[in-house]
Amino acid sequence: MEIESLAENVLAGDRRALARAITLVESLRDDHREKAARLLEILARSGRQALRIGMSGTPGVGKSTFIEAFGQMLTAQGLRVAVLAVDPTSARTGGSILGDKTRMERLSRDPNAFIRPSPSQTHLGGVARRTREAVALCEAGGYDVVIIETVGVGQSETVVAEMSDLFLLLLAPAGGDELQGVKRGIMEIADIILVNKADGDLRAAATRTCSDYAGALRLLRKRPQDPEGFPKAMMVSAVEQTGLDVAWTEMQRLADWRRAEGHFDARRAEQARYWFTEEVRHALLSELQTPAMRAELARLGTAVALGETSSAMAAREIMTQLRGPTH
Amino acid sequence: MEIESLAENVLAGDRRALARAITLVESLRDDHREKAARLLEILARSGRQALRIGMSGTPGVGKSTFIEAFGQMLTAQGLRVAVLAVDPTSARTGGSILGDKTRMERLSRDPNAFIRPSPSQTHLGGVARRTREAVALCEAGGYDVVIIETVGVGQSETVVAEMSDLFLLLLAPAGGDELQGVKRGIMEIADIILVNKADGDLRAAATRTCSDYAGALRLLRKRPQDPEGFPKAMMVSAVEQTGLDVAWTEMQRLADWRRAEGHFDARRAEQARYWFTEEVRHALLSELQTPAMRAELARLGTAVALGETSSAMAAREIMTQLRGPTH
Repeated sequence: MEIESLAENVLAGDRRALARAITLVESLRDDHREKAARLLEILARSGRQALRIGMSGTPGVGKSTFIEAFGQMLTAQGLRVAVLAVDPTSARTGGSILGDKTRMERLSRDPNAFIRPSPSQTHLGGVARRTREAVALCEAGGYDVVIIETVGVGQSETVVAEMSDLFLLLLAPAGGDELQGVKRGIMEIADIILVNKADGDLRAAATRTCSDYAGALRLLRKRPQDPEGFPKAMMVSAVEQTGLDVAWTEMQRLADWRRAEGHFDARRAEQARYWFTEEVRHALLSELQTPAMRAELARLGTAVALGETSSAMAAREIMTQLRGPTH
Repeated sequence: MEIESLAENVLAGDRRALARAITLVESLRDDHREKAARLLEILARSGRQALRIGMSGTPGVGKSTFIEAFGQMLTAQGLRVAVLAVDPTSARTGGSILGDKTRMERLSRDPNAFIRPSPSQTHLGGVARRTREAVALCEAGGYDVVIIETVGVGQSETVVAEMSDLFLLLLAPAGGDELQGVKRGIMEIADIILVNKADGDLRAAATRTCSDYAGALRLLRKRPQDPEGFPKAMMVSAVEQTGLDVAWTEMQRLADWRRAEGHFDARRAEQARYWFTEEVRHALLSELQTPAMRAELARLGTAVALGETSSAMAAREIMTQLRGPTH
C-alpha cells in the first residue's frame, strides 16, 4: 500500500480509504506502526479541524438511539459526522459496543456519516491511543463533527475526555429512590449532562433527574474553561427527537466561547502534549510486558501483598533484572 | 547509623528514633535508599497495624483545629496517634502545611502523639511514596491511628486514599449560593464528609451544607466496600469539640465492617500491589529525568503541541535517543 496515495484518498473524503487508514493505525505490527506514523504526519499538514465530542453513558440510556438521531440532525444540516468508540472491553467480549452497525442503521447508510467500532485491544491505553489517531484521520477526511463514544468502564471516560473538545454524559431518568450509578469521577469532566428519554411516562422523572443533577453540578467547583451556566444538565428525547437542536446549540455556544477565550486551542495543545507523554511512557513501560517480566511482576506483587517483602525491595529486584546488576 | 539498632528503637516506641527513621526514608541519596529499604524490611516483620485515616480539606476549613481536637480525644482514650502530611507544594512554598507545629500546639506536646510535616520533594509521586513508608514506620512504632493529611491539590487526595483505610473530607459550611469548590473527583473517594464549624452563627449553614452533600452522595453509585449508609455526611465542631466522638464511632463502625467483610485486608493487599507497581514505574520513568532527556521532551512536546510533528513520531525519537537506533 502506497502511503502517499492513501493519504490523498483520505483527504479527498473517500470513506473506504478512511476505513483502511484506521485499520492501519490500529495494527500492532511494527512495520504498520511506522507507516501509520508517516500517514498521520502527512495528513496533519491539512490543518483540518472537527468539533470533537466525547460521550459517555451506561448501557440502556439510549446512547445508540441518541447518536443516530443527533447524527442525522447534523447531516441534515449539511455537516459530515464521524462516530468512533473507545471500548476497552471489546477484546474480552469479542465484540465492540459499536460492532453491530444495525444499532445505528440509518446513520450508517448516510453518505455524510462514518461509523467505526472500537479497536479491539485488551488495554485501554492501546485502544485510546489508536482511537485518538482515528480522530485525526477523520478530521483529515473532512468530517465536521467527530463523536467519540464510550461506556462508563474504569478510566475510559477520562481518556475520551483527553481527546475531546466537549464531553457529554447521557443519563436515563431515575425514579424516586433509584440510584443512577454515576461514577463520581465523571462529574469532573462532563460539560453537558443530557437526561435522555424525556418523553411519555418518563417525562416527569426526567425533569426531576435533570433538576437533581443541575443541583449537584452547582455544588462543584467552577472550572476556568466554562462560561456562565456550564456545566449544565438538559433534557432530550432521542426517540421523539426533541431537545437535540437545543443541545446542539448549547454545544456550539460552549465551543465558540472556548474558542474566543483561547481555551479551545490551549486544551488541544495540552492534549497533544499529554498524548506525546503517554506514547513515551507506553514505550518505556512496555519493557515490562515481556512474558518473563510479567511473571516476575506477578510473583513479586504477590510477595508484596502478602507482606513478605517491601515494594522498594521488590522494585529494586525488577530493575536489576531489567538492566543488570550494574544499574 | 546502625540500621538494626534504629529498628529496635522504633519498635520500642522511641519518638526520636521514629523521626530519624522517617528522615532516612525521605532521603534521596542512593545509599540511604538502600538502608531505608532494609529498615522497612526489618520493621515489616512486627506485623503491627494502625488504622490509617486519610483526610483532605482546603485551607480555611479548620483542618489543623480538627486534627488537634480529634487527636487529643483519641490520646485521652489511651490511643497513640501519628499525624503525617502529603503536600506536593511544600518544596515550592518552602514550608509544609504542617511545618509549623504550633498549629497543633497541644497535640504536638502530647507524649502519645507524633506529628511530622510533609517531605519536601517537588513531585507528588515522590512525596507520596515516602509518606507511605513513613506510615509503615509509625505502625511499627506502635501508633494506633495514623492520620494522613493533605490539601486538595491535584491528585494528592487520590494518592492519600491509596495509603488509607478510610478517607475523610473536611468541609466548611457554605452560605446560600456560595460554592464549596469541592473537586469532583474527591466525591469518588470520600468515606465520610465532615462539615466542620457546626457551631455558633454557622450552625444553620452547616446543617444545610451537610444535607446538600448527603443528597449528592445518594446520587452516586454504591461501592462494594461500603455498608448501608456509607459514604455519609456528618457535622462536627472542632472548636466546640462536638460531633467528634460520633464521627470516631462511625469511622470505627466502617472499619469494623470492612474488616469483617474482608474488604480491609483486600484493600491493603491491593494497595501494596499498587505501590509496588508505582515503584517499578517510577524507576523506569526516572530514566526520562536526566537534564538532557528533559530538554528533549520539552522540545518535542512543544513541536507536538504546535502540530509540527505527531506524538508517535516524537515518541520514536525519544526512544531512539534512550536506547540507541538499534532498539
